[in-house]
Amino acid sequence: MQSRILARRDLEFILYELLDVGTLTSRPRYADHTRETFDAALDTCERMATELFEPHYRKNDLNEPHIVHDNDGGERVHIIPEVKQALNAFCQAGLMAAGQDYDLGGMQLPVTVNSACFAWFKGANVSTAGYPFLTIGNANLLLAHGSKEQIDTYVRPMMEGRFFGTMCLSEPQAGSSLADIKTRAEPQADGSYRLFGNKMWISAGEHELSENIVHLVLAKIPGAPPGVRGISLFIVPKKLVNADATLGERNDVVLAGLNHKMGYRGITNTLLNFGEGKFTPGGTPGAVGYLVGEPNRGLACMFHMMNEARIGVGMGAVLLGYTGYLHALDYARNRPQGRHPGAKDPGSPQVPIVEHADVRRMLLAQKSYVEGGLALCLYCARLVDEQKTGECEDARKEAGLMLDILTPIAKSWPSQWCLEANNLAIQVHGGYGYTRDYKVEQLYRDNRLNPIHEGTHGIQGLDLLGRKATMHGGAAFKALGNAIGKTVQQGLQHEDAQTRRYAADLANTSTRVAETTRKLYAPNDLQKTLANSSVYLEAFGHMVVAWIWLEQSLTASRNYKEADSDFYHGKWQACRYFFLWELPKVGPMLDLLESIDTTTLDMRDAWF
Amino acid sequence: MQSRILARRDLEFILYELLDVGTLTSRPRYADHTRETFDAALDTCERMATELFEPHYRKNDLNEPHIVHDNDGGERVHIIPEVKQALNAFCQAGLMAAGQDYDLGGMQLPVTVNSACFAWFKGANVSTAGYPFLTIGNANLLLAHGSKEQIDTYVRPMMEGRFFGTMCLSEPQAGSSLADIKTRAEPQADGSYRLFGNKMWISAGEHELSENIVHLVLAKIPGAPPGVRGISLFIVPKKLVNADATLGERNDVVLAGLNHKMGYRGITNTLLNFGEGKFTPGGTPGAVGYLVGEPNRGLACMFHMMNEARIGVGMGAVLLGYTGYLHALDYARNRPQGRHPGAKDPGSPQVPIVEHADVRRMLLAQKSYVEGGLALCLYCARLVDEQKTGECEDARKEAGLMLDILTPIAKSWPSQWCLEANNLAIQVHGGYGYTRDYKVEQLYRDNRLNPIHEGTHGIQGLDLLGRKATMHGGAAFKALGNAIGKTVQQGLQHEDAQTRRYAADLANTSTRVAETTRKLYAPNDLQKTLANSSVYLEAFGHMVVAWIWLEQSLTASRNYKEADSDFYHGKWQACRYFFLWELPKVGPMLDLLESIDTTTLDMRDAWF
Repeated sequence: MQSRILARRDLEFILYELLDVGTLTSRPRYADHTRETFDAALDTCERMATELFEPHYRKNDLNEPHIVHDNDGGERVHIIPEVKQALNAFCQAGLMAAGQDYDLGGMQLPVTVNSACFAWFKGANVSTAGYPFLTIGNANLLLAHGSKEQIDTYVRPMMEGRFFGTMCLSEPQAGSSLADIKTRAEPQADGSYRLFGNKMWISAGEHELSENIVHLVLAKIPGAPPGVRGISLFIVPKKLVNADATLGERNDVVLAGLNHKMGYRGITNTLLNFGEGKFTPGGTPGAVGYLVGEPNRGLACMFHMMNEARIGVGMGAVLLGYTGYLHALDYARNRPQGRHPGAKDPGSPQVPIVEHADVRRMLLAQKSYVEGGLALCLYCARLVDEQKTGECEDARKEAGLMLDILTPIAKSWPSQWCLEANNLAIQVHGGYGYTRDYKVEQLYRDNRLNPIHEGTHGIQGLDLLGRKATMHGGAAFKALGNAIGKTVQQGLQHEDAQTRRYAADLANTSTRVAETTRKLYAPNDLQKTLANSSVYLEAFGHMVVAWIWLEQSLTASRNYKEADSDFYHGKWQACRYFFLWELPKVGPMLDLLESIDTTTLDMRDAWF
Repeated sequence: MQSRILARRDLEFILYELLDVGTLTSRPRYADHTRETFDAALDTCERMATELFEPHYRKNDLNEPHIVHDNDGGERVHIIPEVKQALNAFCQAGLMAAGQDYDLGGMQLPVTVNSACFAWFKGANVSTAGYPFLTIGNANLLLAHGSKEQIDTYVRPMMEGRFFGTMCLSEPQAGSSLADIKTRAEPQADGSYRLFGNKMWISAGEHELSENIVHLVLAKIPGAPPGVRGISLFIVPKKLVNADATLGERNDVVLAGLNHKMGYRGITNTLLNFGEGKFTPGGTPGAVGYLVGEPNRGLACMFHMMNEARIGVGMGAVLLGYTGYLHALDYARNRPQGRHPGAKDPGSPQVPIVEHADVRRMLLAQKSYVEGGLALCLYCARLVDEQKTGECEDARKEAGLMLDILTPIAKSWPSQWCLEANNLAIQVHGGYGYTRDYKVEQLYRDNRLNPIHEGTHGIQGLDLLGRKATMHGGAAFKALGNAIGKTVQQGLQHEDAQTRRYAADLANTSTRVAETTRKLYAPNDLQKTLANSSVYLEAFGHMVVAWIWLEQSLTASRNYKEADSDFYHGKWQACRYFFLWELPKVGPMLDLLESIDTTTLDMRDAWF
């Protein structure tokens, strides 16, 4: 039976046909690689995800981590043993460092291929995959901003899978508003800091899956400027690391509670207390922390990890949607129910529900969301490769601009539409989809987190319209417009009339989005400009994914082979669905935005 | 503190201002009633729902019914004791019969008021409220189609709360396709039947909350025509009832399993076996059943209950959305986070999130969905009153036609949009909304059932476009069009230019929907006509709710009082939201429908 985590054929289409990842092997960093090494990595991940991650997906959900009291007075979190077994195998296969430099023990896999590898784990078990996902993000941040000593002390053990990492931003009173964090970091004579405060929603914040946990913590040094310009970043290990790399004293980072969520139940999600006095390392109060980069520049560093995390969240949302789609498809092909409209003979055999137009609608919608989302997220990964290894500075800069403007889309679009895919997957299953006997209800619950964490939908809208659309004099916006324009040009010259129509529709939408952006800034009133930024985000996202679908359709035209005709027809049909059923939704959104609608601004609290 | 189940002020607006329920007291059936008796009933229900139903809402979820083995070899379902306490109080207050004739022990409350009373229980605890909801539906069916003896034997004890009822339609292999049920009913010499088969998804199918359970079961008598024309309806009591009304032998209806669902966990949902031989009443195999109405006419009888159940499902969806909205509103008013755009001083105090335009968007959307949905469902209840007690036959007939065409909307629209309200309620809560510490995640899980049971979204679309839109030569469609036309005329003459604009928008939509309906039937190809009926359902639903909102806005204009100005402004603003943000979504749907799009029909299984 084919995997129901992710369609390998589609993944290969996106990597090798759409994104032409093979050409990366001509670049010095990836010179040792070939399509064969890429495929081997994908094989390993597909197998490991299927054999070690997927089997405990439901068990993770049914057996949430819980607190056990330790002999030393501390508290331990109990996690089902399958998680550690899976992660041990993952680390032993060297996957934690798969994308890293050889001298860090890595394989120097391109980011695009590495992301594709990771996709398997996210689809198989998004909770268990969360531990390495956070660890790698943490390591990447330290590689970019940490000192050599910090890299040796913390990143190398993380890359070996001995330490795991977290990111500690939110506090109970400061979620979306990081300007208001209160955790303080007091400088010590030896150059280290002592941290005091509470951090909320910390995934992987406490566990015994690794020898140590490396927390990356945002805090304020006393006397720092108020707001986000006074935030610094610190490494706060769970256990202090001695000069000889052995583990030393327990640091004063203490589990204060576990959050119990609707989904994503397999990964611990914690409230952590820093410096509340349970431990006093070196006899002094406070959690020992080490400054990363410069004081008060912590948020910029953290954004390095957050941007990666945001695309990662999008990818996670895609995979939950993708797995659900494959399950729904399988169900629809095997469940007989009802007959075609007009089939009068009730004695005739029932047809599999995939035969019903409305079920096909739901499957096509899912296909267009999850394959569109996967192509979008891997396209972003491809941009990271371009940014790192592009052949000229202009190409690298351009890739960076594209990433800037696409990050809020890569985060928010799959979080919205691949959640909708899960919703439709339940619907295809009917009553069975609502029970815990089928996987789709868990996928739906798990996916509901994605529009919230790493910046809510609303925050992404503000980021896109308030920052990304206008940054560098609109350079990122223009870069995207140019890229879309190139695809449109190809589409307009296509032999197929439908394709030409889609290209014209995309061109029209792209022009309208640019006009709308100008009109939104025209009133010179930030309240009005930003009031409906969530609508802007949604319209923009559909434009981007329409573009991605037209690219996929054109690629299918170039590469069509009779022997694989079903696959390519599927791409064309999903593209058709997206242009005829989805893109038109953008029209009323742009109408609303252009009218500078103030319905929400005019609403008063007392009127609710 | 105000109730967070349902806003009493809004409920009274809908009952007394929008639907003018007071005028019903001039009709003979309701002559003993006054606004005071209505208010007293609402008071009782609000208090009882708050004190006895709401407190175990979460406990129901955490303590799903489970099977306990009995001494007599049977199986018993354990349900938390709070359910029985709540239901005992409900029955003792006479609420089971609140809408029934005096001579059945009822209060002859109008259906509209009774529905409003019930709304409190659905919002407080949709699972526990499910038991009486099903029992009343069951009783209403028997009152319409049962014999006097059946009414005396089964309905009276149900009205006293001693027996509870169920509806048994689906089977494991036949969910949406009732034509394919296999349960068979063999006639016996004494005029009774013996049933053999399995029924799936039976809510309240097994419990010890009542002395007996009255199952209404669809089955086929051997030799009956194939398909839906061969379905008959039977009463199958859990325990046989002796001639002296005492309880007799255990019937052969046996719990085969409990379904474990994503939500709605407090009500047992069962697989039942009929006539598998665990019990042999009177020494003969089979579950004893009594025919209701005529042989082979069972589905028509069952639709009596199903139509009522469908509006009831819509009402349940509304209430889950409504309760979530009130919780989100409360949270938004009390959670400080962030500042207004352009507020540069990070030292300034944070504002409550209700101040943020995007949070207001989410609250306004919820308000428009839940208040629109509540008005729609109570409008349907009002039509039932009209159908039963209307002053002339034309009025009664007209009400029946309106009910016919509005039933699929009343079922599907709240199931879709009040679920979306719950989605937004989670989003307003941010990370907290995703935890089980707040109520909104349970509301969201519970509400996800509503687009599935009592006819899926897809089935409602087929019912609307394939049956209701064209029935009686389009008479139901025309009746609705006339009603909308009247509201439009009032709106076009309104002094407020915005209101005139909304009226024009509604008129335009209504005209387009009529045109679209004609165009859909033009190809004379049922496959093409019905292929996109879910889109038709959604466009139609938004048109209907826009109409309901315009009616609410006009009512607010008529009744505006300065002393209650916030309330009326809230209605106008939600109406504005619906017309500017929601109704325009219909445009692209109608474009798609008019194009007789065949994307889903052209899709092939192999292309997925």
